[in-house]
Amino acid sequence: MIKAGIIGATGYAGSELIRLLMGHKNVEIKWYGSKSYKDKRYYEVYQNFFHFTDDKCLDDNLNKLSDEVDVIFTATPQGFCSSQINEEILSKTKVIDLSADFRIKDVDIYEEWYGINHENPKFIDEAVYGLCEINRDKIKNARLIANPGCYPTCTILSIYPLLKEGLIDINNIIVDAKSGVTGAGRSAKTDNLFCEVSENIKAYGLTNHRHTPEIEEQLSYAAGQNLIINFTPHLIPMNRGILITAYSSLIKETSYEDLKNIYKKYYKNEKFIRLLDDDIFPQTKWVQGSNFVDINFKIDKRTNRIIIIGAMDNLVKGAAGQAIQNMNIMFGLEEHEGLYNVPMFP
Amino acid sequence: MIKAGIIGATGYAGSELIRLLMGHKNVEIKWYGSKSYKDKRYYEVYQNFFHFTDDKCLDDNLNKLSDEVDVIFTATPQGFCSSQINEEILSKTKVIDLSADFRIKDVDIYEEWYGINHENPKFIDEAVYGLCEINRDKIKNARLIANPGCYPTCTILSIYPLLKEGLIDINNIIVDAKSGVTGAGRSAKTDNLFCEVSENIKAYGLTNHRHTPEIEEQLSYAAGQNLIINFTPHLIPMNRGILITAYSSLIKETSYEDLKNIYKKYYKNEKFIRLLDDDIFPQTKWVQGSNFVDINFKIDKRTNRIIIIGAMDNLVKGAAGQAIQNMNIMFGLEEHEGLYNVPMFP
Amino acid sequence: MIKAGIIGATGYAGSELIRLLMGHKNVEIKWYGSKSYKDKRYYEVYQNFFHFTDDKCLDDNLNKLSDEVDVIFTATPQGFCSSQINEEILSKTKVIDLSADFRIKDVDIYEEWYGINHENPKFIDEAVYGLCEINRDKIKNARLIANPGCYPTCTILSIYPLLKEGLIDINNIIVDAKSGVTGAGRSAKTDNLFCEVSENIKAYGLTNHRHTPEIEEQLSYAAGQNLIINFTPHLIPMNRGILITAYSSLIKETSYEDLKNIYKKYYKNEKFIRLLDDDIFPQTKWVQGSNFVDINFKIDKRTNRIIIIGAMDNLVKGAAGQAIQNMNIMFGLEEHEGLYNVPMFP
Amino acid sequence: MIKAGIIGATGYAGSELIRLLMGHKNVEIKWYGSKSYKDKRYYEVYQNFFHFTDDKCLDDNLNKLSDEVDVIFTATPQGFCSSQINEEILSKTKVIDLSADFRIKDVDIYEEWYGINHENPKFIDEAVYGLCEINRDKIKNARLIANPGCYPTCTILSIYPLLKEGLIDINNIIVDAKSGVTGAGRSAKTDNLFCEVSENIKAYGLTNHRHTPEIEEQLSYAAGQNLIINFTPHLIPMNRGILITAYSSLIKETSYEDLKNIYKKYYKNEKFIRLLDDDIFPQTKWVQGSNFVDINFKIDKRTNRIIIIGAMDNLVKGAAGQAIQNMNIMFGLEEHEGLYNVPMFP
Repeated sequence: MIKAGIIGATGYAGSELIRLLMGHKNVEIKWYGSKSYKDKRYYEVYQNFFHFTDDKCLDDNLNKLSDEVDVIFTATPQGFCSSQINEEILSKTKVIDLSADFRIKDVDIYEEWYGINHENPKFIDEAVYGLCEINRDKIKNARLIANPGCYPTCTILSIYPLLKEGLIDINNIIVDAKSGVTGAGRSAKTDNLFCEVSENIKAYGLTNHRHTPEIEEQLSYAAGQNLIINFTPHLIPMNRGILITAYSSLIKETSYEDLKNIYKKYYKNEKFIRLLDDDIFPQTKWVQGSNFVDINFKIDKRTNRIIIIGAMDNLVKGAAGQAIQNMNIMFGLEEHEGLYNVPMFP
Repeated sequence: MIKAGIIGATGYAGSELIRLLMGHKNVEIKWYGSKSYKDKRYYEVYQNFFHFTDDKCLDDNLNKLSDEVDVIFTATPQGFCSSQINEEILSKTKVIDLSADFRIKDVDIYEEWYGINHENPKFIDEAVYGLCEINRDKIKNARLIANPGCYPTCTILSIYPLLKEGLIDINNIIVDAKSGVTGAGRSAKTDNLFCEVSENIKAYGLTNHRHTPEIEEQLSYAAGQNLIINFTPHLIPMNRGILITAYSSLIKETSYEDLKNIYKKYYKNEKFIRLLDDDIFPQTKWVQGSNFVDINFKIDKRTNRIIIIGAMDNLVKGAAGQAIQNMNIMFGLEEHEGLYNVPMFP
Repeated sequence: MIKAGIIGATGYAGSELIRLLMGHKNVEIKWYGSKSYKDKRYYEVYQNFFHFTDDKCLDDNLNKLSDEVDVIFTATPQGFCSSQINEEILSKTKVIDLSADFRIKDVDIYEEWYGINHENPKFIDEAVYGLCEINRDKIKNARLIANPGCYPTCTILSIYPLLKEGLIDINNIIVDAKSGVTGAGRSAKTDNLFCEVSENIKAYGLTNHRHTPEIEEQLSYAAGQNLIINFTPHLIPMNRGILITAYSSLIKETSYEDLKNIYKKYYKNEKFIRLLDDDIFPQTKWVQGSNFVDINFKIDKRTNRIIIIGAMDNLVKGAAGQAIQNMNIMFGLEEHEGLYNVPMFP
Repeated sequence: MIKAGIIGATGYAGSELIRLLMGHKNVEIKWYGSKSYKDKRYYEVYQNFFHFTDDKCLDDNLNKLSDEVDVIFTATPQGFCSSQINEEILSKTKVIDLSADFRIKDVDIYEEWYGINHENPKFIDEAVYGLCEINRDKIKNARLIANPGCYPTCTILSIYPLLKEGLIDINNIIVDAKSGVTGAGRSAKTDNLFCEVSENIKAYGLTNHRHTPEIEEQLSYAAGQNLIINFTPHLIPMNRGILITAYSSLIKETSYEDLKNIYKKYYKNEKFIRLLDDDIFPQTKWVQGSNFVDINFKIDKRTNRIIIIGAMDNLVKGAAGQAIQNMNIMFGLEEHEGLYNVPMFP
């Protein structure tokens, strides 16, 4: 059994990690780390776990934890993991960081967009960007995984084949994204109250959302050259789910079938990517509670643009599920172990 | 492997059955029965099943189906199962009927409350009311299970110990129930449109909801004498979940602890009943997607009344989950096989 | 023009007061009181008011305010109004208090249920309980109005005629109430986050909700003798609306028509009470944004119980609308001035 | 008093028309036309109107109606108004058509995108596109108004000044739109059931939504040359509201302030357009129930793109409210008569 510790266990991503790990036959949870709820039973924070564990929340001491577990998940605010990590920890245990600390290779960009100092830039190079479908080989031997952000996961996987094959105009990429409210976390803010969110939609983070440089970096790797995009997220009155609607222009006239074949070339063996049938477009509800990313696209012959739509559950493939998928790869398990479940509908 | 066929596979309860059965290691689904979607691929009706099955929907021929499977689930409108069932079918296969056809022992009451003729009353006696926690022994050898209604399951399990022990006034039982919209089914009715249901709550079926006699019959067995109740269901703007708030009077002064011990006496070994800690009251979200019934109660010293609260997922313990629990018992499997999962929150 | 000042202008009830007062042809708002948002423009707190006012939020100095306005609305936490009120203020201006400070005549009961000291019990006697349909005459000449609570308004108006006429058993009154989330206010609490409330229903305040003694006191006046009830509120995933489902037993056999005539006797001239047609039961969406209370009931012949259903908008008739209705009465205006609008649906 | 008749009174737009007209001091509703609910009392179809009218639904005979009223609103499916309209009707009464029949000047484009024959193309020329802020002068003397579509209203008003002044690249306009479910109407379709829509977001009508040519035609007028766009609508789990997020490129470097001044030049006297403060972006909840369009934008210096956001209530400014605004102009009333109300929040 793999012994796992979770730091930040009482956030929504942390609790989803625990829910999924409890259904994973090779994992045993040894540590429910939560500074805010220390000494409280975990199920008292999330009553859905009643009868599944009586364990109490523990502190967030990474050093101590690294003696006791095989893998540490940090589902913590930006800056925490980078401030704690050190060689000794990494020599004893694998670390999968769900924060943004090690996602961006250029530390200046990280510091500029996140507005904080990176306290351990020396580990940035070593960290592997844990987008499983694309970096699978590097993940296998990694000690430190930078688990991708939710918007980046959905966006990059939806567009990747088109950029990799040079089929779209890299100067014209617009990503209009929509997310459920779990993406905003569990801290008590007026803006996230039921009465403010329900019956409402708003854009936020216009031109400066922090997932922008993460998306750009990864898409640039795919394109083989630097690109910048427009990224506009919106808050939707639902709990889970991200849907991205991406727009670009086709370099040359191509048929839907040809492009679909390109997507299949990259994804046909991927367990967690579903290329929907022609003219069936992703809906967040079809992936709820699962690790899938559903993708399809349509060509607008009139404008020569392509519209690509991707959907996934932000807490699963966008956070906890992908973290476990990374763990599975790192520990040599079946990649879909504990993750291959039918989405819950309705 | 148990071969299973589902008639009514394209309703919400049917689709939940299929979702849960796909996660059950001892079951293979052989028949997706749906008159309305015959010849259409199942995943085209519910895209969450994309990549899980390519099977097409088949008709609803119980006779033919009984040659091919070990167990038939009928998640069909009232009157269907009773019109089709016969000795030959039952001699070849187990039948778990999710409709109300065989739940009520007195056929006159059935016909009065449901307003239809019962076409096969001769099988009513044989049918076992599949409330697993209470009728487990009879279920083991049953050929025909009347899977309990959603409101009855939640109500009966929440009150049962109090009646069994003669602790409450049987002339004063009021059940005020609240249900999510999946309980209303998937047929296209104006009343169930998003714009009619959201931002709204209403009572319905006042004094004549068809689950009333079912609840009364089972509670009467528990009490050892006939009783009648008031039952008022309400429609809540959410997908899943039933919460019942039951009111009665205590026969004599009793402490919370004493009553809690009574509940424990009946339920302490039950996998799917969770007696919450003192002063923690059930919420539907804590059981979402799971087979649990969460229960707690409070004594009002001022009025000498007891208020009992129960919550469960209407599609799982209130329909598909309990049907599978029945199947597990009938086939000698672990009762919680394929059903013991952490509820999904949020 | 009546000059009005609002203390607590940035809560949900306060903002609804301002929305309604802006549509009132006889009122001019002179004071947007809000300690938390002092010096911020009001529309910056609630952007729906953009272009309607550029005024800034002011402090909560009742003494100063009483020099400048004809009527003060206090939409403030319990304890505020009672701590500030004095003879001088009341000699200069009318006060309509939306908090519970002056609702309960027995100060001991207030202090017990609210857990705070009442700092000005001497004004309790003078204060008029502002349930307009019942206390209209006293309201006319009042200086200090205790604006009724949301649950009490809906409950009392729904049951009043039955008690006044001695038709139901006063020892058997159970009120099962359901409220939208605006009732919980705008302060940032984890429990009221979208992700905690949506797809969820829960009971709260079991046996000890603070509206209980308020309801009991008023129902006792109606019955002419002291009575106690069971009151259980539930939180519903919607913004606005309260629905109450009340249960009692009929003293003697009575027909629906006879009881309907009793209701008509009391309410036939009431602008804001709608007795729905036979077998049409109230839904919160039918009163959204309006000052109506919709009422109907059904007799269960089997159990000899009567089930009464009432619905209203908790922010309007349950708070701001009723406060304005009180103001209209106090200032000799048409009682429905500024309040008689078609509810918004959907 | 203006006598008004509504055909299609029992759809959501029709019922919103009636709600707003009942608050309009110069209008008397004489005709509640509804083929599907003929002879039923209007309030029985929409109980929010209980006590406001006892009138029954009548048929949809435009000829007869034109003898009785001064203005006819047709809130009917495409093809109805164009099939009924004739010179005699127009000689007796004003017609405001909320369908698309007379919005598009090129009948071939209408027939291609809508897939139906236009039965009265001869009136297309005469019909005035009722986007009040832009075509006010023509509306004054019109007999037949083509009331704009919901998406077109929000989109055109949000972008208009930029095109009129030639500030953005007309070859690069992308409109990503989000709408509440009332936009889908009240007919009973599985896709619009609560359980299908809640907790879900989807794109629909990709590259072929019928509002596309309407938007393009009007934007082309503004630009002074033909342009085509990409338009992608999404369905959001809320009742009311449209938010559009439009993307284009700036022709030359311009500051936010300069562009804001351009917007002010066009809109500073417009009652129903609110240009939000810097860095405050529209939210649908801020305009709920009102006739406002809220607009703001942001320049992305990195990509030289401008992102424009507009929000409005699809049933009000996107349908019924704008229809009344047109009526006000046509009858020489104050343009905002009956329409200038504070949006309802929450």
